[in-house]
Amino acid sequence: MKIYKQKFELSSKTQLEFLDITDKLQEIIDSSGVREGQVTVYSPHTTMGIIVNHNEPMLLQDFQKIFHRLVPVDNQYSHDLFELRRGKNADGRSNGQAHCQNILIGVSETIPIEKGKMLITERQSIFAVEFDGARKRDIVVQVIGM
Amino acid sequence: MKIYKQKFELSSKTQLEFLDITDKLQEIIDSSGVREGQVTVYSPHTTMGIIVNHNEPMLLQDFQKIFHRLVPVDNQYSHDLFELRRGKNADGRSNGQAHCQNILIGVSETIPIEKGKMLITERQSIFAVEFDGARKRDIVVQVIGM
Amino acid sequence: MKIYKQKFELSSKTQLEFLDITDKLQEIIDSSGVREGQVTVYSPHTTMGIIVNHNEPMLLQDFQKIFHRLVPVDNQYSHDLFELRRGKNADGRSNGQAHCQNILIGVSETIPIEKGKMLITERQSIFAVEFDGARKRDIVVQVIGM
Repeated sequence: MKIYKQKFELSSKTQLEFLDITDKLQEIIDSSGVREGQVTVYSPHTTMGIIVNHNEPMLLQDFQKIFHRLVPVDNQYSHDLFELRRGKNADGRSNGQAHCQNILIGVSETIPIEKGKMLITERQSIFAVEFDGARKRDIVVQVIGM
Repeated sequence: MKIYKQKFELSSKTQLEFLDITDKLQEIIDSSGVREGQVTVYSPHTTMGIIVNHNEPMLLQDFQKIFHRLVPVDNQYSHDLFELRRGKNADGRSNGQAHCQNILIGVSETIPIEKGKMLITERQSIFAVEFDGARKRDIVVQVIGM
Repeated sequence: MKIYKQKFELSSKTQLEFLDITDKLQEIIDSSGVREGQVTVYSPHTTMGIIVNHNEPMLLQDFQKIFHRLVPVDNQYSHDLFELRRGKNADGRSNGQAHCQNILIGVSETIPIEKGKMLITERQSIFAVEFDGARKRDIVVQVIGM
């Protein structure tokens, strides 16, 4: 049994964005040499989470709409006052909704590995979900196995 | 430390269904021989997720209502147009909502094991949640420990 | 590779409460002696979940409002009838909403460990989220690594 960790950077371009990191994860698993085990993908942020689903552009629009409908950006968030008092977001930008959207999906997912490959079916992709872009971000990937 | 993986099939009978897989998971842990460790339950699908909660029939109805209210099946989903163009769901069936419901719960959960048993209290059951049934599905179970 | 498990108790004071367990988790990791690995935090309950986000009091109010808006305590939950028939909650107290809120966030999160510390950035805290307090609760922490 071994454990292997690697971080990588990624950049978002818009406020709410789905960044497909599937190929990058597989690269890291290849580097780890693990053939049987599991990979944990982790976002060390409070406004970026992890989901696994289908990378289909029209579906990603549906996901955007769901997040905006469940946690509207134009509601009032007390957190925005906190940020304003700290001198942040003086342009009226809100990021209270980004934190609230994030807790609905969480910051980690774990995926089994078989024969050196993630056990994902053809329609599954792994996404880092940006809720407060555009930004530079880090993702931490940990592989455990043999 | 060892790692042990097993897959099993299950079948859903309705569109949105809670399939209690607690006993099956315990069987797999028994087969693994792991006494101290953890089990990760993983759905390799984009419209089936994993939750841990109380298997009480009236509560499961409440869960159904919550998913239908937060992500209504009769909203318009762009993804349904994508599927229609591929020649799928020509009967007007929608599955955009199933993907959106799935990302709210995720595809994996991890549960500690103590003395060969999952550390679940009497009211906890583990469910594979079908959002786009009826279908045959696979679940992947991975046990790590000693 | 080793595996280390520890449970601890905590008490909530109100119905919906965010209990910051970050320092306690780090203590347990210190006790484990693991320098490189990961920690899984697990709630063995059906109305307490785990999130990772910013411990900022006004943001925690926003989280409360989101849970109350998405899953209102004053909706009707079939599960409350079940509890009433069992002789529970005869005071009209509802806990159907607590179960429904819980499945939106899940019962486990996994966080990488580097040089003996959780890989959390300055704004990240780990919370046990009480949805049906006030109560005494248990949290299970499992550390895997070297």
